[in-house]
Amino acid sequence: MAEGNTIFIGRKNVMSYVLAIVTQFNNSAKEVHIRARGNLISRAVDVAEIARSKFVQGAKVRGISISTDDVPCEDGSVSKVSAIEIILEKL
Amino acid sequence: MAEGNTIFIGRKNVMSYVLAIVTQFNNSAKEVHIRARGNLISRAVDVAEIARSKFVQGAKVRGISISTDDVPCEDGSVSKVSAIEIILEKL
Repeated sequence: MAEGNTIFIGRKNVMSYVLAIVTQFNNSAKEVHIRARGNLISRAVDVAEIARSKFVQGAKVRGISISTDDVPCEDGSVSKVSAIEIILEKL
Repeated sequence: MAEGNTIFIGRKNVMSYVLAIVTQFNNSAKEVHIRARGNLISRAVDVAEIARSKFVQGAKVRGISISTDDVPCEDGSVSKVSAIEIILEKL
């Protein structure tokens, strides 16, 4: 998978990411990976659901995985943070 | 699936739900469904990851699905809210 097909969810509003997904599918991507960590996981699900149901015709969820990432802190310690990856595909 | 095997994630702390999952597996449940809506989706992923990796030996994620639920508001209108269901199974 090309890295360009991955959308990392941050603090922008939901529609910014929906637009990014629509753009990738319009550029003939077959699938788009949506990734998020921590509290942003809820926003990733919102983005996937809105893109799939309202903006990308024929899109469906191909797979979802969850994991635990190690995130280095400023003081040198490591925090564990939950992460999600949602794969949308267009048929 | 028996309804008793479903854990609905609310505003309690993460470990309360982890404990509920451990209890269900100890009562010989083969699988536990974790459900959450809106901002609580992130907490559901935390709960699943902590239960799986630290507290339930041999547990793994059997499947994850996302959806959009219609939630009635007080004024009679209907809001759309994202939802997640994570199925943990013990082998």
